[in-house]
Amino acid sequence: MDQSVIINNISKHISLTKTESDYFISLLEFKKIKSKQFLLKAGEVCKHSSFVISGCLRGYSIDKNGFEHILNFAPQNWWIGDMYSMINQTPGNLNIEAMVDTEVLMLSKINQEKLYVKVPKFERFFRIITEKSLIAYQQRLMDNLSLTAQERYLKFCTTYPTIINSIPQKQVAAYIGVTPEFLSKLKAKYLKGH
Amino acid sequence: MDQSVIINNISKHISLTKTESDYFISLLEFKKIKSKQFLLKAGEVCKHSSFVISGCLRGYSIDKNGFEHILNFAPQNWWIGDMYSMINQTPGNLNIEAMVDTEVLMLSKINQEKLYVKVPKFERFFRIITEKSLIAYQQRLMDNLSLTAQERYLKFCTTYPTIINSIPQKQVAAYIGVTPEFLSKLKAKYLKGH
Repeated sequence: MDQSVIINNISKHISLTKTESDYFISLLEFKKIKSKQFLLKAGEVCKHSSFVISGCLRGYSIDKNGFEHILNFAPQNWWIGDMYSMINQTPGNLNIEAMVDTEVLMLSKINQEKLYVKVPKFERFFRIITEKSLIAYQQRLMDNLSLTAQERYLKFCTTYPTIINSIPQKQVAAYIGVTPEFLSKLKAKYLKGH
Repeated sequence: MDQSVIINNISKHISLTKTESDYFISLLEFKKIKSKQFLLKAGEVCKHSSFVISGCLRGYSIDKNGFEHILNFAPQNWWIGDMYSMINQTPGNLNIEAMVDTEVLMLSKINQEKLYVKVPKFERFFRIITEKSLIAYQQRLMDNLSLTAQERYLKFCTTYPTIINSIPQKQVAAYIGVTPEFLSKLKAKYLKGH
């Protein structure tokens, strides 16, 4: 298994010595998840942050009426986890499911804390990627409050250019917060207009 | 001006020596903002993270139809800033306005970077508070997709217990994403039901 993908991701924000990089790699656990299998189920306590080496995962919750709401997709190079559950160490609401056969490197919460102690510059790395993630959620929240469904769809295409053509439309709909039927009408209207 | 409020806030997550704490304080700039005045206006580049000593701020953007959408409120002990603008150093969409006379301690982006170099444990502090903030926005996003307006109103009361009775109802409405008229009907119905 090639670890250069995760090291390249980290090197964007912090510089690691060979020893630090080897130590970090030693803390990771490799896992393969078959399409439609779960990395995490609602009701479980999330114990890992996972970095996607190949494939794609999606994080979603199911509301009391049985509707699915998608929090995020994680294609290659993205980190995913139920941060609420992980930080509070209580059961979460998030399901994390593979959309295709997927490979991840998992960093357990325990190993992450060890890492912070031994290589404190990882505080910086996770501070920076958490800030970027925060910005994205703030933006999506404001978009949900202020943009039309069509504008949100176009933003979705910009955010996830690598997966837009490969994921089921009902999941795009669940992400932008409309019914699949509405999304279908909206796309037909948009294509007609261009 | 009493700096113990901000030091107490930081001490929840990291331990500072007297020297570190004095250095941190030396990087802060104190500012008073009169009610209805702005800490930041849309179109400006955000250069500071601000910690509220007293009073309350609100962060909001105005969409192309003139509607206000509230991203957050910052009562005493909360940090606020336009993180998108600050990280990218480009003009943002956020207005940050005082709801009452407010006092803040501002940490400039430049001083924050100095702080990370000189006292790296602040990476940890900001990593932790950014994670908590991220969780809150993820939760609010999922709430907006899955909860009714009434449930969102009740969540708002839990999130901001100290300000719920002192802020205009139209601002609560702008936060939960309904019209003020709808919120008014909803509260009447709720009170009737209890």
